[in-house]
Amino acid sequence: MADQSPRRIRCKAAVCRAAGEPLVIEEIVVDPPKAYEVRIKIICTSLCHTDITFWQAKIAPVFPRIFGHEAYGVVESVGEHVEGFAAGDTVVPTLLGQCDSCGSCASEQNNMCAAVPLTMGPGMRRDGTTRFWDAQGNPLHDLFAVSSFSEYTVMDVNQVVKVDPAVSPKLACLLSCGAGTGVGAAWRLAKVEPGSSVAVFGLGSVGLAVTQGAKMCGASRIIGVDLNPDKEKIGKSFGITDFVNPSQLDKSSVCEVIAEMTGGGGVDCSFECVGVPSVVTDAFRCTRPGNGKTIVLGLGAQTDVLCLPALELLFGKCVMGSPLGGMKPKTDIPVFAKKCMAKELELEGLVTHEVALEEINKAFDLLLQGKSLRCVIWMDK
Amino acid sequence: MADQSPRRIRCKAAVCRAAGEPLVIEEIVVDPPKAYEVRIKIICTSLCHTDITFWQAKIAPVFPRIFGHEAYGVVESVGEHVEGFAAGDTVVPTLLGQCDSCGSCASEQNNMCAAVPLTMGPGMRRDGTTRFWDAQGNPLHDLFAVSSFSEYTVMDVNQVVKVDPAVSPKLACLLSCGAGTGVGAAWRLAKVEPGSSVAVFGLGSVGLAVTQGAKMCGASRIIGVDLNPDKEKIGKSFGITDFVNPSQLDKSSVCEVIAEMTGGGGVDCSFECVGVPSVVTDAFRCTRPGNGKTIVLGLGAQTDVLCLPALELLFGKCVMGSPLGGMKPKTDIPVFAKKCMAKELELEGLVTHEVALEEINKAFDLLLQGKSLRCVIWMDK
Repeated sequence: MADQSPRRIRCKAAVCRAAGEPLVIEEIVVDPPKAYEVRIKIICTSLCHTDITFWQAKIAPVFPRIFGHEAYGVVESVGEHVEGFAAGDTVVPTLLGQCDSCGSCASEQNNMCAAVPLTMGPGMRRDGTTRFWDAQGNPLHDLFAVSSFSEYTVMDVNQVVKVDPAVSPKLACLLSCGAGTGVGAAWRLAKVEPGSSVAVFGLGSVGLAVTQGAKMCGASRIIGVDLNPDKEKIGKSFGITDFVNPSQLDKSSVCEVIAEMTGGGGVDCSFECVGVPSVVTDAFRCTRPGNGKTIVLGLGAQTDVLCLPALELLFGKCVMGSPLGGMKPKTDIPVFAKKCMAKELELEGLVTHEVALEEINKAFDLLLQGKSLRCVIWMDK
Repeated sequence: MADQSPRRIRCKAAVCRAAGEPLVIEEIVVDPPKAYEVRIKIICTSLCHTDITFWQAKIAPVFPRIFGHEAYGVVESVGEHVEGFAAGDTVVPTLLGQCDSCGSCASEQNNMCAAVPLTMGPGMRRDGTTRFWDAQGNPLHDLFAVSSFSEYTVMDVNQVVKVDPAVSPKLACLLSCGAGTGVGAAWRLAKVEPGSSVAVFGLGSVGLAVTQGAKMCGASRIIGVDLNPDKEKIGKSFGITDFVNPSQLDKSSVCEVIAEMTGGGGVDCSFECVGVPSVVTDAFRCTRPGNGKTIVLGLGAQTDVLCLPALELLFGKCVMGSPLGGMKPKTDIPVFAKKCMAKELELEGLVTHEVALEEINKAFDLLLQGKSLRCVIWMDK
């Protein structure tokens, strides 16, 4: 009887050889899945700003590396001890694991699974090794143990979420990181209440997904804040009710403007989706005393420090952060997808560009120039 | 028929004439209560570190001023439109109002009543005027519209909480600010869970009340952190299970020590009860990723800025603050008092000294030297 176990696969991947350099399409070798691992054929992937942060070597700089962590694919093969997944399943990868057995997974307020802890550095979560090799047989590092800028990837079973094949690949792809983070932050983390007021700092993909999430939760006022005047129109199409461009204010600060808009008190919830510490301070100052919440979603540099006026915090404020906006991938992504299919959430507008893998550097250029929201990269186009 | 309306009262008060100077016992005049106000005969009051912060002019420096905001007394007379209070009622004053009608009072998570907003500056909350005059007829400023370092004071009815006369005056007095803040922070704000781990930075009155609150909530590990080695013994009598003195650590930081104590993860909840920004950073770093909570209770200077590493927040942490530790005075003080009478909370040990009004400066000396927890000042001794 022939050996049915999965073999190594040769395929194409976009490899980053050094910080800030264009990616190179190379033929690589992808190992078979080990125990508790799944090998996935990536259908499409999209570029998230977090990829850029790592590409710029602002956090955990190791190269050569295969980036990409927002994607959609089909299970190609499974390793030993994998339950609940089989070849042909439609799935999304996520940077956070969910084992559904540990204390963190049991807690409603904690999405940092202890079984497969999130790390910034490379290496599969269980044994720290890689599954990627270049043509010369040298190891290639991964990102978040996802590395979706490859035709095939190997992932821990706890980081793979099954999705209904009726969900469109692009939508599922978006939900696996950026859009899921925004919706999760509004719905799961901030628990935006009907009739409440919200400020969203930074109307990129995450900020616009926050906007949709806050709208779905019934927020009556959603104030978008962005330095780019073009964001007013797109922001309104996602649900912002007001737009503030801090660079176009005469004498007032953004906090003064938002205080005035909200009758002097400030907003109930403020979301920072930029990744700049001074913007976090602004977002914090715009929340109202008593129980104003600031949700920090933007990822800046590893050494960034947030500065908050102590007395304002003591007057009843709260600042919180959570990877993926607090969503639990296996629990929430299928729920968010259903909300999208029922048109309670409208996120497709986040896809502004689509390219083939060979054109992946165009996706980087578009995002760096602020011209795209999400650029979807198709493997088979 | 003789005029039954309340008249001005001449009585003794401890007046602070200038920042940092010893208080002076003076004969003062206290106005009758205006509409929605209550005049209270103070039975006892205690010195809270927040009085010291204002006495040192770190916040809102105005003089001459009558400090004191943690007290117990009896209603002497009531102004027009006062409902639910009558002469003879046993009450405590609080720095926070509670109207039970506004949106903030209606919200479970908000104790910043909008009807009588908390201010740092002096003046009655409704009209900004004073009820205190010195012997020469010059106005004396209040603190938090409470000013309990006087035999009589006038307060807004929303800042007065009725307490069961069976509750001891000392206990009621403690609950009106410091002890209520500590218990509130553990129970209401942090919602400490059974079996969870807690770190308490600063084992003064607030920190020890947090300890009792956390113990009542079922915390299994309560780590006290203080630079004063004498706090280990008193801390253990209040319920800490472990003690860390940062000044006696060889090479490790307090965060490293606490990480080790908790199996590498850090504590579920960390309470800062000192009022020093760098201690807030330490408290934050000692919480565990996923859903670690840092509760800021210490009040420092008006310009203090808290510094938090951004990436740690993004890994699932939360920082919160609230006046009085999130408790709603009219709702919670009677509940906390019952818990004390049932011995579920043991707070009497916070009273380490008792003096007469004439000796009030001794209370300041003891607290400044770290020799007292609470010094109760009796008006009639």
